[in-house]
Amino acid sequence: MRPNTPSLPAPSFAGQDILSVSQFDRTKLEYVSGVAHEMRVLVERFGGADLLQGKILANLFYEPSTRTSSSFMAAMMRLGGQVIPINNVQYSSVSKGESLPDTIRTLESYSDVIVIRHPEVGAAATAAYYGANPVINAGDGVGEHPTQALLDLFTIVEELGKVDGLTVTMVGDLKYGRTVHSLTKLLLNYDVTFRFVSPEILQMPSDVLDAVNASGHAYEQVEALPDAVAGSDVLYVTRVQKERFTDLAAYDRVKDLYVVDEELLTQAKEQMIVMHPLPRVGEITYGVDDDPRAAYFRQMRNGMYVRMALLAAVLGRA
Amino acid sequence: MRPNTPSLPAPSFAGQDILSVSQFDRTKLEYVSGVAHEMRVLVERFGGADLLQGKILANLFYEPSTRTSSSFMAAMMRLGGQVIPINNVQYSSVSKGESLPDTIRTLESYSDVIVIRHPEVGAAATAAYYGANPVINAGDGVGEHPTQALLDLFTIVEELGKVDGLTVTMVGDLKYGRTVHSLTKLLLNYDVTFRFVSPEILQMPSDVLDAVNASGHAYEQVEALPDAVAGSDVLYVTRVQKERFTDLAAYDRVKDLYVVDEELLTQAKEQMIVMHPLPRVGEITYGVDDDPRAAYFRQMRNGMYVRMALLAAVLGRA
Amino acid sequence: MRPNTPSLPAPSFAGQDILSVSQFDRTKLEYVSGVAHEMRVLVERFGGADLLQGKILANLFYEPSTRTSSSFMAAMMRLGGQVIPINNVQYSSVSKGESLPDTIRTLESYSDVIVIRHPEVGAAATAAYYGANPVINAGDGVGEHPTQALLDLFTIVEELGKVDGLTVTMVGDLKYGRTVHSLTKLLLNYDVTFRFVSPEILQMPSDVLDAVNASGHAYEQVEALPDAVAGSDVLYVTRVQKERFTDLAAYDRVKDLYVVDEELLTQAKEQMIVMHPLPRVGEITYGVDDDPRAAYFRQMRNGMYVRMALLAAVLGRA
Repeated sequence: MRPNTPSLPAPSFAGQDILSVSQFDRTKLEYVSGVAHEMRVLVERFGGADLLQGKILANLFYEPSTRTSSSFMAAMMRLGGQVIPINNVQYSSVSKGESLPDTIRTLESYSDVIVIRHPEVGAAATAAYYGANPVINAGDGVGEHPTQALLDLFTIVEELGKVDGLTVTMVGDLKYGRTVHSLTKLLLNYDVTFRFVSPEILQMPSDVLDAVNASGHAYEQVEALPDAVAGSDVLYVTRVQKERFTDLAAYDRVKDLYVVDEELLTQAKEQMIVMHPLPRVGEITYGVDDDPRAAYFRQMRNGMYVRMALLAAVLGRA
Repeated sequence: MRPNTPSLPAPSFAGQDILSVSQFDRTKLEYVSGVAHEMRVLVERFGGADLLQGKILANLFYEPSTRTSSSFMAAMMRLGGQVIPINNVQYSSVSKGESLPDTIRTLESYSDVIVIRHPEVGAAATAAYYGANPVINAGDGVGEHPTQALLDLFTIVEELGKVDGLTVTMVGDLKYGRTVHSLTKLLLNYDVTFRFVSPEILQMPSDVLDAVNASGHAYEQVEALPDAVAGSDVLYVTRVQKERFTDLAAYDRVKDLYVVDEELLTQAKEQMIVMHPLPRVGEITYGVDDDPRAAYFRQMRNGMYVRMALLAAVLGRA
Repeated sequence: MRPNTPSLPAPSFAGQDILSVSQFDRTKLEYVSGVAHEMRVLVERFGGADLLQGKILANLFYEPSTRTSSSFMAAMMRLGGQVIPINNVQYSSVSKGESLPDTIRTLESYSDVIVIRHPEVGAAATAAYYGANPVINAGDGVGEHPTQALLDLFTIVEELGKVDGLTVTMVGDLKYGRTVHSLTKLLLNYDVTFRFVSPEILQMPSDVLDAVNASGHAYEQVEALPDAVAGSDVLYVTRVQKERFTDLAAYDRVKDLYVVDEELLTQAKEQMIVMHPLPRVGEITYGVDDDPRAAYFRQMRNGMYVRMALLAAVLGRA
């Protein structure tokens, strides 16, 4: 922790939008993780709290995402708030020629905060620009999904007690994977070493690597997963999708290199964690689920705590 | 206000259905607007109230209408009630050959009040006939949509402080527009002057004009919007839909006559309001949004207050 | 009631799953009916109770079923809990290649109890196996739908005050009808006489008849409904579906034999009840609805009470 952090006032998110990981410096990240931890304690002891009683969340999903949508709903409900779920926008009058700004201004006349998932990059920022109430970005196409990155970071903090000094290994589709890009950016606020494990055609994009370099962080790029497991503190697994490959022979060569199974974990540290944004489709075998290092279901639950923290924060109750 | 209103007992809606604007005389309209105003104060000061705690609304939408559906949900939630949303009836077993009366009797065994949106004229009345609990019509095809008319009237009251003596100008598709027909009928309870602005083929139907005449109200019919703006207290804008025209040349001649923009408003009174049931698709330019006379987003919010008033009233809590 | 029941401790369902009617012996059935009756009193007097305040139900429907889904939602809401409705799983990421165990473990990280409706036999058991929180089966294909059978039994108890000594007549499609199979199994815990009324090709399956025989219960099989009405205490009606017949002449011969109308009821006892799981499509005429013996809408409402009892029980609050 930076020496002067304790004397700074706590950052306030009241009335603000949550649009991008770039909004968060180390002080703010620690604040969010701290509040999320308090939310965890509240839920584990009492099931929740009444911080947001009387508040209404408009949960506006232009694409289906049961996982993220349910997580935000649960977060709001556990704080005593209520949720207007708008899950099938493509079938509804909201989408019939109406502009996003008009939809936002309509929905905020009924609600106190809007969560938006939209297929187009920048949609959340547009919503925030026109909305007077807080807007939280729940994913805008290939753009940002900041609450995912925040819950990933919070999971590392909760599981390992610190972030500085860790070796974080990211595995799989690093080229198109929105989650690994965002998490990498957040981790640049800490003293971590990166290992990027992917087939050559799915390597981390150069702009992300440039940012890692520019901030003075070390990284290595590896093609075979087994070479990277020993010494890793965090193994962040994503899916390698067959449809990314134009050369199927290349896919067949690499696909088995990216499966985390019990045997692979024999080479891993005792105190490490396996993470995954889920859903998984074979890249972590079911045999791993019973290993205490399998953190991905706890990670899901952490998503709810982080979203509770953010909802309470933007509504001025945290 | 009629002199004897204060000494009359407040009208009671407890246990009643809300099906048609024809149910409302001036006393009842003033009662609904009065309660809706109280709801507004409650929401602005406290976010809501617990009047309907423990009550359940079945929100039964046979056609998608995110706007109206969300407004009713928010209204119920702000009063402490809960909502069973039934939004995709066409996919569900409710619609598989089951009669509307059976659906209503099933849903009212779970709930305290039913809001219904249905594509067929008379469906809400059928639902009300078979249901023992209150039913609120949220639109039955080309039939009625009484809560829209009530929120329109309430908006005039809230914005301008009175209805008597106003000049109300309705613009656009007056032939097929359900909202302008219903609002006109409600306004016949007051001393207003009407201006109906539309292309010739989209004029107000003769039965509505006859009712205006029969009640001794004055009206004029105008084809060009600019001619009607000066002196108007309310400019109620609706969309002129291209698909209504068989003669596209006729459409091209008139379409620009029905766009409300900043320049047009220079000819309008300082104390007037622009209303629109939304969604809009170009008939009010975005530049108008920042004009204090642009009332259409406040109108949306008023919809929630009016629905809160109606829900509380039919459930005997207002 | 068995003589030693009063001295036994009440059965506890806390933390348990509700998957099959075979879980329930007479003691447990009486417990569920007893709690359901208390729920009815609570709702009728106070609208509900706060037993499950702060609890969240994930209502996971892989097939549409507005009736059952709404009933569980209302049950949870009337106890002060909240509901995450997941109604269109086929469109959502939950179903995109993700295994049911992963979906369950994700959802239970947000919720306290899961209700699942799934088209495949055994899906609820799989969900329960992988889930740490209670799972309630709301129908798994042609498998089980235990809450339907429990609400049917509860309806008999509430309407007639007892089960022992009754003659229960089941009518219609007894071959494929999941509800009549399950109800028959539950009734084997009591001293009842069965009448099974169906066309020959839709008779009760031999394994159900064997169970009836093995437990020493009497039954008779009848093809014509009028022959079975006199003396029946319960007339449980289900639909005879045309599509079950390969020989349409056979369908035409029998279809009118399975319609319950006012004339048929002239032959029935004064103190009997007509039940139906709904939706009906003609097999009970609307004229019957006003007969006090028509219990099917009260049966719907009983479904909510039974589900309230089960939710409270598995969450340790009953």
